[in-house]
Amino acid sequence: MRSLDVPTIGAAEYAARREALRAGMEQTGLDALVVFYPARVAYLTGFHHIPTERPVAFVLGPQGQCALVVPAVEKEHAERVAGMDHVEVYFEYPGVRHPMQRLASLLRNLGAQPRRIGADHDGVVPYWGYRGPRLSEVIGARTADVEPLVEALRRVKSPAELACIQLSCDWACRAHRRMQAAIRTGVTEMECYEPAAFETLREMIGEMPGWRPRGFGGSGLTAMFVGGRATAMPHGFVRGHGVQPGDVLVSGASADIDGYHSELERTMVVGQPTSAHEAAFAAMLALQDRAIDTIGPGVPLAAVELEVVDLARELGHEQHLRHHVGHSIGLEGHEAPFLDRGEEGACEPGMVFTVEPGVYLPQLGGFRHSDTVQVTEDGCRVMTDYPRALAELVVG
Amino acid sequence: MRSLDVPTIGAAEYAARREALRAGMEQTGLDALVVFYPARVAYLTGFHHIPTERPVAFVLGPQGQCALVVPAVEKEHAERVAGMDHVEVYFEYPGVRHPMQRLASLLRNLGAQPRRIGADHDGVVPYWGYRGPRLSEVIGARTADVEPLVEALRRVKSPAELACIQLSCDWACRAHRRMQAAIRTGVTEMECYEPAAFETLREMIGEMPGWRPRGFGGSGLTAMFVGGRATAMPHGFVRGHGVQPGDVLVSGASADIDGYHSELERTMVVGQPTSAHEAAFAAMLALQDRAIDTIGPGVPLAAVELEVVDLARELGHEQHLRHHVGHSIGLEGHEAPFLDRGEEGACEPGMVFTVEPGVYLPQLGGFRHSDTVQVTEDGCRVMTDYPRALAELVVG
Repeated sequence: MRSLDVPTIGAAEYAARREALRAGMEQTGLDALVVFYPARVAYLTGFHHIPTERPVAFVLGPQGQCALVVPAVEKEHAERVAGMDHVEVYFEYPGVRHPMQRLASLLRNLGAQPRRIGADHDGVVPYWGYRGPRLSEVIGARTADVEPLVEALRRVKSPAELACIQLSCDWACRAHRRMQAAIRTGVTEMECYEPAAFETLREMIGEMPGWRPRGFGGSGLTAMFVGGRATAMPHGFVRGHGVQPGDVLVSGASADIDGYHSELERTMVVGQPTSAHEAAFAAMLALQDRAIDTIGPGVPLAAVELEVVDLARELGHEQHLRHHVGHSIGLEGHEAPFLDRGEEGACEPGMVFTVEPGVYLPQLGGFRHSDTVQVTEDGCRVMTDYPRALAELVVG
Repeated sequence: MRSLDVPTIGAAEYAARREALRAGMEQTGLDALVVFYPARVAYLTGFHHIPTERPVAFVLGPQGQCALVVPAVEKEHAERVAGMDHVEVYFEYPGVRHPMQRLASLLRNLGAQPRRIGADHDGVVPYWGYRGPRLSEVIGARTADVEPLVEALRRVKSPAELACIQLSCDWACRAHRRMQAAIRTGVTEMECYEPAAFETLREMIGEMPGWRPRGFGGSGLTAMFVGGRATAMPHGFVRGHGVQPGDVLVSGASADIDGYHSELERTMVVGQPTSAHEAAFAAMLALQDRAIDTIGPGVPLAAVELEVVDLARELGHEQHLRHHVGHSIGLEGHEAPFLDRGEEGACEPGMVFTVEPGVYLPQLGGFRHSDTVQVTEDGCRVMTDYPRALAELVVG
């Protein structure tokens, strides 16, 4: 693979996102916008950072001026971001003068009227040891909630975003194949993760010169699973008890391509599956098939979950559902909108969802595949090309 | 090591924390409190969860009733938490009825008067695809800000917390020794991490039966470093370019003991250090010595940083500082208060800080050690027992 083949989000696309935001700002009669939530800052600028208690903000001014507010630890990193008219660097949080005061000065200097300032959150989204005033307090006026303005842009993915997510799927599949091949009865989980974590990562570095993870931590590639009874809770913690015959394993693999993610999860059975394993697996697979068959342009998001719930009821598994069908995915591992009975709106071409209905049986384990699925013009397309049948997922 | 030796936070300590919070609630004339921020929920209940867009909240009622609000994916996990009078389970976010409405009903049922409800954040701290109303909107009254009430409890660590942090330091040192021994010119970073990630983790599992990470992700043990020019930015991303002669490496190691963390970081030089390396290293070490010499009960937190800045100025390195001296550490990687010129308050016995002044030279690299340091009755104690001198940190 040549490095030219590695998709990225270019400066022009980031600029177009900001221009779309500016159009929304003008339509709503606002002078300036402040974006605090880290993934939204990354979406609008390409500035990915590891969140800490130190505030970071993106500011869009009355004449479309673009500014980043960052701590000194992010100075060079922020100064390399294309399209910024200004980078406001404060030394440190908390510091003698609170960074929110610095932000308020910046807004004044941009000529933004306090009553015409919008923000995605009324102040920094608190994290770790952060504490600070609301934005409305430091500017002396109520801020307009523009979170939906930014989030509306993120729902449908662009061709470049889809290419990043597809490549993430491809690497996730490669890592998962290697991990699956390493699963042996008696070895610890960590030993099974190792070949994918090291060999596949080495291949990513080798085949994609210049690639590096843009996301918020880790090596940029993950392939793991939880085993045994822990799978009966959808978000089981990783344990080190080792792979045992009869265990149900639920895996997860993903890769970071210019900050974009995907999700591949598989239910595997260690050793000869019992009839109980087979029945639960078959029900799970039928639910996932139903969801994939339902997804398509114009289909209400709620309908996808309700179709799955109907089938689960028919199959006698309604009480074993523990979560909705899936979530959007892209810059973040979970994004809105959701394949959930409470969602308004419909599937649109270019939306990307995880499709992962699960059946959770307390005495047996959890059964869940997750595939990353793109809504297309005439239906949908599974982006994670990986075996789904039980026969191909028996390990050990 | 016997499993009895592994420190944990017991149910009695969690109950005492809630009792202290209740006392604070009564002093401030409040009926009920809602805690949204995940680490604070863990601090008050022992309920550690991986944050997603699904709201989780801890509620303290007028008669001291304790309740958790959780999604179905966390049901069994939450039901095992000691001391809870009620676990309110909603199926899923967003769902047909927003979880915040469920929380509002719970508060009404507890008999809390809307005008006498406090919260650590006015609604769920947004994460991933979450969107929802403020708490003040669903209860129809302004909420009192009780974040400082909870945070005041976390500043000084209990004996059990100190024991967890100490054991975290000990495992971090073991992992770091193994990683340091694996660093060789020409190998990739990941290959250097591998022995610690697998062998030391295996030892943790073997020597501490029943141990498992409680924190928000990962295996519970980390040992890594960034190398080359990337170290000149304090929060450099991990790269896969391999260890090169002349590289400056800045490492990080930590372990999760019942949810508690520590921080060990070392600056290492690959191959024979140059005189420029030696000079920058010596300056960094002098700054760290100065900070450790300064810390003690009653010493203003701001004074610790100002002493370091004074010495940096004397040494001609003031312009190479990029952040303050350190932060508190415990349940989270960074906590308040900070060793920062802007902090009020003073060091108190039982506070635990990272001490990590750094010298960042754009053409040479970053030089930073971080040690975890406990304030004692008569000074302070370095909890991370690891070599600090350059001669012991030459690798490759």
